[in-house]
Amino acid sequence: MDTPAALLDSVKMQRNIQRMQQRADSLGVHLRPHVKTHKCAEVVAAQIAAGARGITVSTLKEAEYFFELGIQDILYAVAMAPHKLPQALALRRRGCALTLITDSLAGARAIVDFGAAQGETFAVMIEIDCDGHRSGVKPQDALLLDIAQLLGDSLVGVLTHAGESYGLDTPEALQAIAEQERARCVEAAQRIRAAGMACDQVSVGSTPTALSAVSLEGVTELRAGVYAFFDLVMHNIGVCRTEELALSVLTTVIGHQAEKGWIITDAGWMAMSRDRGTQAQKRDFGYGQVCNEHGELIDGLLLSSANQEHGVARFEAGGVDVVTQFPLGTRLRILPNHACATGAQFGNYNAVLHNGEVQRWERLRGW
Amino acid sequence: MDTPAALLDSVKMQRNIQRMQQRADSLGVHLRPHVKTHKCAEVVAAQIAAGARGITVSTLKEAEYFFELGIQDILYAVAMAPHKLPQALALRRRGCALTLITDSLAGARAIVDFGAAQGETFAVMIEIDCDGHRSGVKPQDALLLDIAQLLGDSLVGVLTHAGESYGLDTPEALQAIAEQERARCVEAAQRIRAAGMACDQVSVGSTPTALSAVSLEGVTELRAGVYAFFDLVMHNIGVCRTEELALSVLTTVIGHQAEKGWIITDAGWMAMSRDRGTQAQKRDFGYGQVCNEHGELIDGLLLSSANQEHGVARFEAGGVDVVTQFPLGTRLRILPNHACATGAQFGNYNAVLHNGEVQRWERLRGW
Repeated sequence: MDTPAALLDSVKMQRNIQRMQQRADSLGVHLRPHVKTHKCAEVVAAQIAAGARGITVSTLKEAEYFFELGIQDILYAVAMAPHKLPQALALRRRGCALTLITDSLAGARAIVDFGAAQGETFAVMIEIDCDGHRSGVKPQDALLLDIAQLLGDSLVGVLTHAGESYGLDTPEALQAIAEQERARCVEAAQRIRAAGMACDQVSVGSTPTALSAVSLEGVTELRAGVYAFFDLVMHNIGVCRTEELALSVLTTVIGHQAEKGWIITDAGWMAMSRDRGTQAQKRDFGYGQVCNEHGELIDGLLLSSANQEHGVARFEAGGVDVVTQFPLGTRLRILPNHACATGAQFGNYNAVLHNGEVQRWERLRGW
Repeated sequence: MDTPAALLDSVKMQRNIQRMQQRADSLGVHLRPHVKTHKCAEVVAAQIAAGARGITVSTLKEAEYFFELGIQDILYAVAMAPHKLPQALALRRRGCALTLITDSLAGARAIVDFGAAQGETFAVMIEIDCDGHRSGVKPQDALLLDIAQLLGDSLVGVLTHAGESYGLDTPEALQAIAEQERARCVEAAQRIRAAGMACDQVSVGSTPTALSAVSLEGVTELRAGVYAFFDLVMHNIGVCRTEELALSVLTTVIGHQAEKGWIITDAGWMAMSRDRGTQAQKRDFGYGQVCNEHGELIDGLLLSSANQEHGVARFEAGGVDVVTQFPLGTRLRILPNHACATGAQFGNYNAVLHNGEVQRWERLRGW
C-alpha cells in the first residue's frame, strides 16, 4: 500500500456504531447518523444495519449520493440557502423524503414561496439555538412562533445541536449540556404546540452529548456523526479511549534530523488536514498521535509539525535514537485530531476487515 | 454558480506569474514552479508560456499527471521513499526526465541499489538544510560528501528551501534569509566540486525568498509555488498586496445571529481548509478576509470561525446591522490564509477570464 493512506479499522468502527445505536435504543429515540464524518456508502450501510433511521447530511451533494444508494429519509442539517431550492425540489420529486431546516423568517418565506410556486410542500424543521454556539432561534424568542406560523404545513419539527459540548471535558459538564440541549429543544417544541401547531419531531445531538445524556424525554431522534470513527478531540473530551479510534493515516519514514530527534514522514497536512482541534484542549496532540504499523500507540511520539507533504514526528521528552529505532522506510500510523477533517483529505478509505482483508471504500467529496 | 466554490481570477494569476518570471529572468536563473499550490493544467500552461523551465512536484501522482500532459522535466522535491522507486522508474522508462532528492546515506543507497538492479541511473539532487526548518544535510556536514560519493553518476546537484522565511515579515529579514538560502546551497555545491565531483544544478527557493533575493550568484534555478495565487500569509509576510490574491472562495449568506453581529455563510472549514496560517502573524485573519461578490475588501469583516459547512463572519469592531446589510442569499468572497490548503479542498477552480467568461479548470487530488 502506498502512503500516505487513510486506514479504517472496520472492527473498531462496527463497535463504535453498535455503541451509539445501543445508547439511542436505551434512551428510547431513533438514531439519525450524520454522514458528513465519513461520506462513505459502506459506513452508512453498517449504520443502517445496526438500526439507524435515516441519515443527516451536510450538503445536498451528500443527499443526492446517498439517495442514489437507496437511502430515502434524509435531513439536510444546514440552513437552506434559497438558491439551492431547485436542487432540493429535484430530490423530492424523485421520491427522496428530504427535510430542510431554517432559522429565519427570510429563509422560511423563501422555502414556502418556492414550494407554492412549484406545487410542493417541503418538510422543514426550525433550527433552535440551545447554547449560543452557531445558528438557530432561541426557544423563548417570539421569532420561533412567527417562523412556525409562516411554515404552516411544512413544519415537521425542531432541531438543535449543542456544538459547545466540544469545549467540555468532564462528565458533569457534558451531562449538563446534554440536558440543556434536550430541555431547550423540547421547550421550543412545546411552545409551538401550545400555540396550536403540530411539532412532531424533536431532534438533538452531537457525539459528546449523545454519549452523556441521562434522559432524552420529549426527544424523538438523536443525531451524531464522529462517533463512527472517533478521534483525539473526542478522546480529550472524554467520550472514547484512544484504542477505539477507527481512522488513522498510514505513513512512511522518509528521513531524519538525528541530532534534533526528528522523524520526517510522508504524512503532512495534506494527509492529516490542518485541523489542530486538540490545541486548546487538555492535551495537545500536535497533528496526531503516532502509532506503530499495527496501530499500537508509541508513547510520547507526536506529529509535532506539518508541511504539505512532510510531517515531523518527535518524542515530547526527546532522548530516543530515532534513526536506529525508526529507519528510513519504517511504516507508522497516525491517529488524527479530527476524523471528519482528516477523512476529507482522501478519496477513499482502506478498510481493514476482521479477517485482515483490505477493501477500498470510496469517499464522496466536494459540493 | 453553486456555493461554496473556488474562484480563480486568471488576470491576477497571469500578473503574478509574470512577476515571478521577470524576477527569475533578472536574477539570471531558470524558474521551476512548484505546482503543489494549484495542481492544475491550465495554470502550469501559463507558467510554461511565461518562461518556466520544468516543474517541481510534491507527489509522484503530480509527476504522472503533468507528464501525461506533456511536461517532461520534473523535480520530485520530497525525499524519496524506497517503496516509491518502482513508480519513479516507470516514469523514467516512459521518457520523463524525473529528478529525485535525498538527504541520507540510506536514501541514496536505496536509489543507487535499485537503479543498479534495474539498469537505470536515476538523477538525484542532495537536499541541503539551509535554515534548520525541516529536512536536509547541513552544507558543512561530512555526510554531504559521503552521500555525493555514494550517488556517483546519479548526482546532478543540490537543492534547498528556506521554509523559515514564512516566519518573517520585514524586507531586511527576508533579504537576509534569501542570502542565507543562496549562500549555504552554493557552499554545499562548492564542497562537492572541491572534492572532485560534478554538481551542475544549484536549486533554491520559496516565494518569500524568491521575491526578496538581491543576488542569486552561483544558483542555477529558482523554485516557488504559492506566488501564482498568493494568499493572506504572503500578504502578512509582505511580498504581495491583498489586491493581488487570485484565489477566493465564493459563498452565500445562509443566516445571521443579529444581536451578536454574526453572518452565517456556507463556507466553513471544508471550503476554506483548517489552515490558520495567519494566527501567529502580525495580523490574524481568522479563516479569511471577507470581500463582496466583486472581490472588493469589506474592511474589518473576517471569517472568524468555521465548522464543517458553516462559517461565521463578523466585523472586528461590531456595530453593523448585518441582517440588513448582508441579507439571506447575499454572495461574498473570502480570501484564504493559505492558497495551497484552500485550493486542495476543491476538485476544480472556476477560472474567471479577462472577458468575464468562467471556465472550469480541473484540479488534481490525492496520492
